[in-house]
Amino acid sequence: MSAESQQGRENAEPGSMLDLGRAVLAMQPFSVHLGAELVTLEPGTAELGLTVAPHLAQQNGFVHGGIVSYLVDNALTFAGGSVLGPNVLTQEFKVSYLRPARGQRLVARATVLYSSGRQAICRCDVFGVDGEQETLCATALGTILAADPG
Amino acid sequence: MSAESQQGRENAEPGSMLDLGRAVLAMQPFSVHLGAELVTLEPGTAELGLTVAPHLAQQNGFVHGGIVSYLVDNALTFAGGSVLGPNVLTQEFKVSYLRPARGQRLVARATVLYSSGRQAICRCDVFGVDGEQETLCATALGTILAADPG
Amino acid sequence: MSAESQQGRENAEPGSMLDLGRAVLAMQPFSVHLGAELVTLEPGTAELGLTVAPHLAQQNGFVHGGIVSYLVDNALTFAGGSVLGPNVLTQEFKVSYLRPARGQRLVARATVLYSSGRQAICRCDVFGVDGEQETLCATALGTILAADPG
Amino acid sequence: MSAESQQGRENAEPGSMLDLGRAVLAMQPFSVHLGAELVTLEPGTAELGLTVAPHLAQQNGFVHGGIVSYLVDNALTFAGGSVLGPNVLTQEFKVSYLRPARGQRLVARATVLYSSGRQAICRCDVFGVDGEQETLCATALGTILAADPG
Repeated sequence: MSAESQQGRENAEPGSMLDLGRAVLAMQPFSVHLGAELVTLEPGTAELGLTVAPHLAQQNGFVHGGIVSYLVDNALTFAGGSVLGPNVLTQEFKVSYLRPARGQRLVARATVLYSSGRQAICRCDVFGVDGEQETLCATALGTILAADPG
Repeated sequence: MSAESQQGRENAEPGSMLDLGRAVLAMQPFSVHLGAELVTLEPGTAELGLTVAPHLAQQNGFVHGGIVSYLVDNALTFAGGSVLGPNVLTQEFKVSYLRPARGQRLVARATVLYSSGRQAICRCDVFGVDGEQETLCATALGTILAADPG
Repeated sequence: MSAESQQGRENAEPGSMLDLGRAVLAMQPFSVHLGAELVTLEPGTAELGLTVAPHLAQQNGFVHGGIVSYLVDNALTFAGGSVLGPNVLTQEFKVSYLRPARGQRLVARATVLYSSGRQAICRCDVFGVDGEQETLCATALGTILAADPG
Repeated sequence: MSAESQQGRENAEPGSMLDLGRAVLAMQPFSVHLGAELVTLEPGTAELGLTVAPHLAQQNGFVHGGIVSYLVDNALTFAGGSVLGPNVLTQEFKVSYLRPARGQRLVARATVLYSSGRQAICRCDVFGVDGEQETLCATALGTILAADPG
């Protein structure tokens, strides 16, 4: 068992889906670099969070759209993986930016709308979190594929 | 003046569109953090490049999809800005991932397909660059809006 | 006043939003040709229905995807128009087909996720209706624009 | 045998890909109802055309967006089928409407950007044709899947 999944043990049963998901996230150098956290991972749903920091901004001080799209991409993948298994990839997504992304944290919540054995169609909403207040800043729709076996 | 815009002076006339674009990019902390470079900015087209590094990877060693979507988002925005003016925002985009993103560099080339005074519809292709070899790894279609004045 | 909007009077106050929407639908020759009906139109939501008929099929006997995309396009537009006013156009949408479209009827339900004065971001789900049973067959996300005044 | 596939015989070798495509199109009641014609079908590319008629209009006299999206959907499917085989389905697409669709004819040209054994990522442009003049009115990006065997 990896160090990552042991860390997962604080909030998750050993071997749980959340534990496994956190282990996968810990194997993504870019996610570790950004400090992304997998908050929830259950069959059909995933929540990914990120603490906002100055180096994640665009020129007007809001969180860069590329950070929002990273969250969309990754939350969709985890949601898809929650029903298709850990070996998945994001085939495509469409994101609409509704409002500037800001707050202390961003959270992306993705849910599976439909899945067959090999693909999952998932929706994702991204919220800026400011204290108790959540504001929807982007919404997305995407397709996750089970990767072909080795 | 930042290192980026000084570097821009080497190939761009002071006050040129590319010079202005590089100044905008240099004002995006996240783009500076990633080391993104604006290679080309002309009316209707933009090219954004990024040197691949280990901390940008996902769990299989390829560049994380969130980096590809950052490049799509930002290249679309610069292409839109090249016809709408510097005060623009990305309204939405759809990206299809075709192949794993890898190579020494990634380049995103965006072109304007149509623009009115307030919006531009742009296409973007992202390539992995390995020596002389370029491989298309993602393609996208998006909408850029002129931001409302102050 | 058209036959359609007179028919609308049964469930709608004269001059109501639904009444107005039905008058607009009746001015769309293609919608009249298909027999589309505007079931609901309230601020932020629209429902458009269509009776399935053999000439709307694709080669496997299901309703053609082009009919589903027509419903998406038009339901999105009416939802957007419910908050932006009647003079709107669909800028773009993305649709994911989840299951074959079948049943006695199809209904498309669109809701506004966000709107400013000039644009609305809307979601749309399309269901096949078989007796009391509704099955989600497609989901979409799109952008509606207020048309520039003449 | 329908009029469409007989007409197809004039320009296509019996058993050719175009011939087969026209036979598939002739099995789509909705496409026959609209009078759609498969103009080209070669590995990686498809062109679908439609004669504009008053009953295909929306309320301002332009061709209804639902007709444009039908053409997108179907041209994408044929392009995908040209590399994946005839038993395919459209998984998803995103369409951006650039200009009002008008002219004597509409043509949709779709090309395959990437395909594996089971999926094809395709682009589609829709043009209004007025005499010799073609005007781009919509552009799309979508995914075609090989249908699971019976």
